[in-house]
Amino acid sequence: MDTLTIIASASIVTAGLTIGIGAIGPALGEGRAVSSALTSLAQQPDAASSITRTLFVGLAMIESIAIYCFVISIILIFANPFWNHAISQAGGR
Amino acid sequence: MDTLTIIASASIVTAGLTIGIGAIGPALGEGRAVSSALTSLAQQPDAASSITRTLFVGLAMIESIAIYCFVISIILIFANPFWNHAISQAGGR
Amino acid sequence: MDTLTIIASASIVTAGLTIGIGAIGPALGEGRAVSSALTSLAQQPDAASSITRTLFVGLAMIESIAIYCFVISIILIFANPFWNHAISQAGGR
Amino acid sequence: MDTLTIIASASIVTAGLTIGIGAIGPALGEGRAVSSALTSLAQQPDAASSITRTLFVGLAMIESIAIYCFVISIILIFANPFWNHAISQAGGR
Amino acid sequence: MDTLTIIASASIVTAGLTIGIGAIGPALGEGRAVSSALTSLAQQPDAASSITRTLFVGLAMIESIAIYCFVISIILIFANPFWNHAISQAGGR
Amino acid sequence: MDTLTIIASASIVTAGLTIGIGAIGPALGEGRAVSSALTSLAQQPDAASSITRTLFVGLAMIESIAIYCFVISIILIFANPFWNHAISQAGGR
Amino acid sequence: MDTLTIIASASIVTAGLTIGIGAIGPALGEGRAVSSALTSLAQQPDAASSITRTLFVGLAMIESIAIYCFVISIILIFANPFWNHAISQAGGR
Amino acid sequence: MDTLTIIASASIVTAGLTIGIGAIGPALGEGRAVSSALTSLAQQPDAASSITRTLFVGLAMIESIAIYCFVISIILIFANPFWNHAISQAGGR
Amino acid sequence: MDTLTIIASASIVTAGLTIGIGAIGPALGEGRAVSSALTSLAQQPDAASSITRTLFVGLAMIESIAIYCFVISIILIFANPFWNHAISQAGGR
Amino acid sequence: MDTLTIIASASIVTAGLTIGIGAIGPALGEGRAVSSALTSLAQQPDAASSITRTLFVGLAMIESIAIYCFVISIILIFANPFWNHAISQAGGR
Amino acid sequence: MDTLTIIASASIVTAGLTIGIGAIGPALGEGRAVSSALTSLAQQPDAASSITRTLFVGLAMIESIAIYCFVISIILIFANPFWNHAISQAGGR
Amino acid sequence: MDTLTIIASASIVTAGLTIGIGAIGPALGEGRAVSSALTSLAQQPDAASSITRTLFVGLAMIESIAIYCFVISIILIFANPFWNHAISQAGGR
Amino acid sequence: MDTLTIIASASIVTAGLTIGIGAIGPALGEGRAVSSALTSLAQQPDAASSITRTLFVGLAMIESIAIYCFVISIILIFANPFWNHAISQAGGR
Amino acid sequence: MDTLTIIASASIVTAGLTIGIGAIGPALGEGRAVSSALTSLAQQPDAASSITRTLFVGLAMIESIAIYCFVISIILIFANPFWNHAISQAGGR
Repeated sequence: MDTLTIIASASIVTAGLTIGIGAIGPALGEGRAVSSALTSLAQQPDAASSITRTLFVGLAMIESIAIYCFVISIILIFANPFWNHAISQAGGR
Repeated sequence: MDTLTIIASASIVTAGLTIGIGAIGPALGEGRAVSSALTSLAQQPDAASSITRTLFVGLAMIESIAIYCFVISIILIFANPFWNHAISQAGGR
Repeated sequence: MDTLTIIASASIVTAGLTIGIGAIGPALGEGRAVSSALTSLAQQPDAASSITRTLFVGLAMIESIAIYCFVISIILIFANPFWNHAISQAGGR
Repeated sequence: MDTLTIIASASIVTAGLTIGIGAIGPALGEGRAVSSALTSLAQQPDAASSITRTLFVGLAMIESIAIYCFVISIILIFANPFWNHAISQAGGR
Repeated sequence: MDTLTIIASASIVTAGLTIGIGAIGPALGEGRAVSSALTSLAQQPDAASSITRTLFVGLAMIESIAIYCFVISIILIFANPFWNHAISQAGGR
Repeated sequence: MDTLTIIASASIVTAGLTIGIGAIGPALGEGRAVSSALTSLAQQPDAASSITRTLFVGLAMIESIAIYCFVISIILIFANPFWNHAISQAGGR
Repeated sequence: MDTLTIIASASIVTAGLTIGIGAIGPALGEGRAVSSALTSLAQQPDAASSITRTLFVGLAMIESIAIYCFVISIILIFANPFWNHAISQAGGR
Repeated sequence: MDTLTIIASASIVTAGLTIGIGAIGPALGEGRAVSSALTSLAQQPDAASSITRTLFVGLAMIESIAIYCFVISIILIFANPFWNHAISQAGGR
Repeated sequence: MDTLTIIASASIVTAGLTIGIGAIGPALGEGRAVSSALTSLAQQPDAASSITRTLFVGLAMIESIAIYCFVISIILIFANPFWNHAISQAGGR
Repeated sequence: MDTLTIIASASIVTAGLTIGIGAIGPALGEGRAVSSALTSLAQQPDAASSITRTLFVGLAMIESIAIYCFVISIILIFANPFWNHAISQAGGR
Repeated sequence: MDTLTIIASASIVTAGLTIGIGAIGPALGEGRAVSSALTSLAQQPDAASSITRTLFVGLAMIESIAIYCFVISIILIFANPFWNHAISQAGGR
Repeated sequence: MDTLTIIASASIVTAGLTIGIGAIGPALGEGRAVSSALTSLAQQPDAASSITRTLFVGLAMIESIAIYCFVISIILIFANPFWNHAISQAGGR
Repeated sequence: MDTLTIIASASIVTAGLTIGIGAIGPALGEGRAVSSALTSLAQQPDAASSITRTLFVGLAMIESIAIYCFVISIILIFANPFWNHAISQAGGR
Repeated sequence: MDTLTIIASASIVTAGLTIGIGAIGPALGEGRAVSSALTSLAQQPDAASSITRTLFVGLAMIESIAIYCFVISIILIFANPFWNHAISQAGGR
């Protein structure tokens, strides 16, 4: 296995696992937040505007964590500095 | 095992595991959200419109996480840059 | 083990595990949603129509996640681009 | 180990694990749904028809996930394209 | 290890694990359903007939999942196409 | 390791694990069912006959899953077709 | 490692693990059943006879699952057909 | 590693793990049963005799499962038929 | 690695793991029992004598399971028949 | 595998796993915090300002932990001192 | 690796893991017992003497399990019969 | 693999895993603390100042544990004494 | 790898894991005890002295378990008899 | 791999894992303690001083466990006796 193959394989596997594992937490967290929002709406319909606003801020915070994972995943596939270095090495050889 | 075989195998296995593992969290999260929505609807039928709207926004957010996994999975199968590079390498040889 | 064998094995194992693992989350999520729907129906029979409608939308969303897994699984078995490339390679040789 | 043996072994092991693992989620989900249906029936016998109807729709949805696993499992045993290709390869040789 | 030995071993191990793992979910699910049925019977003895009927339908659905596992298990032991092919190969040689 | 040894070892290990793992679910499920039956009996002694009848049907269903595992286990030890074939192979040689 | 050693080791390890793992479920299940029986006795002392009777039937059912494991375990140690065959093979040689 | 060493090692490791793993379930089950007995005693001191009697029967049932593990463990150390056979083999040689 | 070293290592590792793993269950079980005893004492101080007596019987039963593990552990260290046999073998050589 | 390849692979895999695993905790923690905030808002709409302020401070604290993981992940990809040293080593050679 | 090294390594690793794993159960069990004692004290301050006495007996029982682990751990480090035998073997050689 | 490569790889992997695993506990702990603070604020708005003060002290304590992990992680990347020693060794050679 | 290296590595790894794993139980146990103490103080401020005294005894007991782990950990690093023996062996050679 | 490299790697990996794993328990425990403190403050604002004092003592006890892990971690990095011995060995050679 030469350098390019190893780095490509590691990048592929890691990119998938990063978003795969990283999706568990945010999805459960958002599920919980949405679930509470709905219960709260049913309990206090008058506070709907402040509940909705707080929910969206919270979802944005949690989604940001999922996006960290997605960003790392995309970087590893499309802007991988190690891969670029290896390509330029191979090209220059 | 030559380069193409390794990259293909890694892509296949990762594509499957990414969506496989990544489906657990969003599915449970959506299940929880829908479950709360139904409980809330039964408790406060008058707030049905705001409950439904909030539920759909929440489901969209959670579904987006599952879609991140699906996108990575599809990219790895159909638009894999490492595979394309390896193919072009092999073709040029 | 030649290229075709490795890719075939990886595809078989991954196709199975993808839907196998990916079935856990959606099934539990749908179970929870249906369970809440039934409890809500018993508690508020008058809201049956809105409960049923919301339940079906929710089930559709969750089922879609299971279907992502099923699609990847079927793609890996019947429309696997890596397998097709390897076959054409082997055929052209 | 020649190609046929590897593919056969991978298919056997995967077919079993797919339905084995894939049975956990749907069974628990259906158990939960049925359990709620029974509790709801006891609580609100008058809503029996709508509860039963909703339960059957829900069970059908959850069962469909178990059936995805069963289908993949059966495909891997009786209609495995990789096995068929390997057989035809071996036969033609 | 020749082909027959490998396929036999894989079939034996898989047959056992399939029903072994696959028994966990249905058993827990049925336990939950029966448990709810009993609680409901105690709470609302008048609804005994509809509770019992719904319970049996539910148990049948859950049992069917366990039976999928059992069927795959039995197929792998007594009607294994890969084994049959290997036997006919060995016999014809 | 010759064919007979491998098949014997695989059968021994699998037979044990099948019933070992397969005992967890049914035992917990039956424990739950019995537990609910007792609670229900204490709550509604008048419904004792219908509770007991439903309990026995439920226990029979759950026990049947444990028996599937036991049957596979016993088949692997005493009526193993792969072992029989290997024995006849070895005897005929 | 000759045949006898492998089969002996596999039998020893499996015999222990079978009853070791298989003891978890029944013990927890019986603990739950006994626990409910005691709670029920305290709640409804008048139903003591029917509670005790149901408890014993339930414990017998659960114990039977533990005994399946014990039986397989004892069979593997004292009446192992694979071991007997290997001994007779070795003796006849 | 000769036969005696392998069988001795397997017996030692298995004997320990059998009782080590097998102690988890019964201990938790008995803890639960005792815990319920104490709660019941505090709730209904008049039923002390029937509670105590039922508790002892239950503890005996659960303890019997732990004793199955202990028996297998002791058999593997002090009355291991495979070890005895290997010793007699080695002695007769 | 000669026979003595292997048996010594296996005994050391197993002795530690047996009591290490085997301590989890009894400790949790006793914690639960003591916890219930204290709650019951606070709820019904008049039943202190029967609560204390039942607690001690229960703790003795649970402790006995931990002691099974300890006994196996000590036997493996100080009265290991396999080690004794190996020593006598080595000594007689 | 030369030095550069190993360090690159280790960096890629670690970068992904760090944020992947590290996303679970913060996402669940934030989900819980947001969920409580929404419940509190519904229960005490008058305290909305202090609830929102406390929520944002808390989310910031939890998000900071996710950002520690993201920072380490980015450092490993874009400012990895070990990679830089290895590059300079390789360049100077 | 000679005999002394293997036995020393096994003893070191086992000594640590024994107390490391063995600390989980007792610590959680004691935490639960102390927790209940405090709740009971707050609920029934008059029963403080009998609560405290029962708590100390219970803690002593649970602590004894942790001490079993500690004793095995210390025996493996400072009074290891296998190590002593190996030392005497090495010394006499 | 020479000394520098091994130490670099170990440092990279450990640095990531340390903060990755170490983020789970503090994040969940802080989530719980913040969640309770919000519930308490809604329940007793008058105690807001003492609740907020206690919350911040608690968050600081928990954050300090996450920071221990972050510090070890950063030390391993930027101030690793083993790496420095190896570099100076390599430089002096 | 010579004797000293192996023993040193085993000691380092074990020392860390012992306190690492061993910290989980006591920390959770103390958290639970402190948590109950605080709830009890809020419920019954008059019993503060006896609650505090019992809490400190309990914390001391639980802390002692963590200290067992710490002691073993420190012994393995600074007073390791196996290391001392190996050093003296190496020195005398 | 020479002695220095192995010891360095083992120290690096262990130092990270020790604090990484060891952070889970204390963080969760402190989170629980703080959470109860806040709930108690809201319930009984008058007992704030005794609640706060008890909380700080408890947090100190739990933090001490995290600090044990941190100390072992720092010792392994900066005051590792095995590393010092190996360095002095290497220097004297």
